[in-house]
Amino acid sequence: MNASISKNDFMNALTKVASALPSRATSIYALQNILLEFKEGEGAIRISATDLEVSSVVDSPATVQEEGSLAVIGSKLIESIRELPDDEIILSSSEKNVLNLKSGKTRFNLRGVSREEYPTLPVLTGEKSFKVSSKVLKEAIKKTIIAVSVNEARTFLTGAYFTIVDKKIRLVSTDGHRLALSDITAGEIGKEKKNVSVIIPARILLIAAAAFEPDEKITISLSETHVVFSGETGRFSGRLIVEKFPDYQKIIPKKFETSIKINRQVLLDTLRRVSVYSTGEMTPVSFNVKSGKIFLHAESPEFGDAQDEIEAEVKGPAIETNFNSKFIQDVLKVLTGDELNIEMSSKIAPALFKTDNDKEYIYILMPLRG
Amino acid sequence: MNASISKNDFMNALTKVASALPSRATSIYALQNILLEFKEGEGAIRISATDLEVSSVVDSPATVQEEGSLAVIGSKLIESIRELPDDEIILSSSEKNVLNLKSGKTRFNLRGVSREEYPTLPVLTGEKSFKVSSKVLKEAIKKTIIAVSVNEARTFLTGAYFTIVDKKIRLVSTDGHRLALSDITAGEIGKEKKNVSVIIPARILLIAAAAFEPDEKITISLSETHVVFSGETGRFSGRLIVEKFPDYQKIIPKKFETSIKINRQVLLDTLRRVSVYSTGEMTPVSFNVKSGKIFLHAESPEFGDAQDEIEAEVKGPAIETNFNSKFIQDVLKVLTGDELNIEMSSKIAPALFKTDNDKEYIYILMPLRG
Repeated sequence: MNASISKNDFMNALTKVASALPSRATSIYALQNILLEFKEGEGAIRISATDLEVSSVVDSPATVQEEGSLAVIGSKLIESIRELPDDEIILSSSEKNVLNLKSGKTRFNLRGVSREEYPTLPVLTGEKSFKVSSKVLKEAIKKTIIAVSVNEARTFLTGAYFTIVDKKIRLVSTDGHRLALSDITAGEIGKEKKNVSVIIPARILLIAAAAFEPDEKITISLSETHVVFSGETGRFSGRLIVEKFPDYQKIIPKKFETSIKINRQVLLDTLRRVSVYSTGEMTPVSFNVKSGKIFLHAESPEFGDAQDEIEAEVKGPAIETNFNSKFIQDVLKVLTGDELNIEMSSKIAPALFKTDNDKEYIYILMPLRG
Repeated sequence: MNASISKNDFMNALTKVASALPSRATSIYALQNILLEFKEGEGAIRISATDLEVSSVVDSPATVQEEGSLAVIGSKLIESIRELPDDEIILSSSEKNVLNLKSGKTRFNLRGVSREEYPTLPVLTGEKSFKVSSKVLKEAIKKTIIAVSVNEARTFLTGAYFTIVDKKIRLVSTDGHRLALSDITAGEIGKEKKNVSVIIPARILLIAAAAFEPDEKITISLSETHVVFSGETGRFSGRLIVEKFPDYQKIIPKKFETSIKINRQVLLDTLRRVSVYSTGEMTPVSFNVKSGKIFLHAESPEFGDAQDEIEAEVKGPAIETNFNSKFIQDVLKVLTGDELNIEMSSKIAPALFKTDNDKEYIYILMPLRG
């Protein structure tokens, strides 16, 4: 086992794979390992990690002199590589299951375990597959993930619903208080026109979105139980949430009474400001929408209150309602451009947030009781 | 009560005062407050905080229209000021014990308590006083504080010993494993030539070092029980540790056998690197000092080992010993310049670290058993 590799390339690949490592001390210590396979023919070191729910595999280009494989504790390998002094790293193994790292005058000998002690990752082949550019996929995931529930008791809401509507890939998420919907028209959906409705866990979506470079062609493959995202960077796969997603169409209002155009960044700054006087996790802010202006107000029984106002183009009747400030800030942070559209109907009806910049995305938010 | 103040000035002053707020939820809720006193004659808002151990008082220049005072929760005040949109802030009080903040179109009303509900800070007058430039004081504190003990069971080691030796102010700290000693020749010690030996808690030293600008004239006043650091920025005072400091002179060796000149930054980088393979909080690294070179080695029973080497100018016999890597890194980080001198005598004798850049500072470190 012998190879040389660039420190930068190796670190980059390791970071992408490491997101599949178990997030906390797990009972299966072997899963803290990263599997390294030196592939002479492919001129690469294959790097794999899994926590049994999700798996990541990345090939990092290397000059491989001698094939071989072993698994070493992922966090320690990354810490070691980060500290090496030169860009060229020589990897070898003089002793069974010990990885020797050489760079400049530094020698690290990192104890590992044999490939056999590491769990075998199943090679998954999806029955249905879709192609999409990584740039569009990353954007859609970023905008949808914000409404995924973090309440593990409601497993079916802890992922994004993946479906095909009008030859578009659609991602939908909701935590019961809000809903995010992102369509991807740019994808190739082949013959898989319908009957696609799965729930992809947030974790695998985040791992894939973070790992792919912005200019890759991604294939999304689905089986009954698994999803695989594969591109030039690598393969990121995970178990689906095999449960029923709620009928999200019902939640989206068909029409609205009041239509607002407002500067996105100004609204974000103002919300952050008045939210200093909101209390606890629920951060209610009242919106008093009048002609040409929105007045904001937040109050904390303990500390006092805050008032602010923002200019806005308002069409339709005046309206007064309350929102969770954090939930609005979440969507304002993932949107781009200055112009934001908000549609409302009444004190208790859901509001819709969208921008002209991205016509394939909507965000629905339930008001809070005042 | 009415004043206008610049956001930047106010934030700067609040940050300096806030370091005296109790560090965690204390049973005396009133201490979470910062006291604001609007002083018309002085054109300033006086800002005070205390946790009863240390107290900070800073005057922030302001245009005061109407005198008055109240106390508000420090963290909430700072959070509020940080979020205000314009540089000009108008402070007033329309309702009893409510602070109104106005900036741009934003209005914050922060509930507080009356001055009477806030603890009265004693005005301390030291019996002995010393003058020193803030630049020299900040440096001396930075280099001494690293060896202060964090073990609260040994209270007498949780501060720095302050004494006068040969007309110099001397700061000494030790945690039993190492000792740092910093002399200040630039100070004015007046007639207080001797009989000065107090222990100043680390916390008040850190607060003063952080608060003063680099170009202030500082007066250090001592009473039997208290120390006050005062300068243009403000007054920072605290209770002394009234205990006996160990006889530090005994710990400092009079002569050494082996003398090493080595590049400080290279040693720091190399130590950080091999310490990846040290274990736990004690991070032993072995030093094998030979002619022209030092070989470093660290070993972790769990993960493996690391070897490295550094060129060095070595005078005297070869020596092999072990140090806690973190304790060496601590001193290397506060020293400046490239050239570091290390003096050693044997495997078990303390080593001395110093630089030509600062001849008034030494750091003594006990070896670890190999």
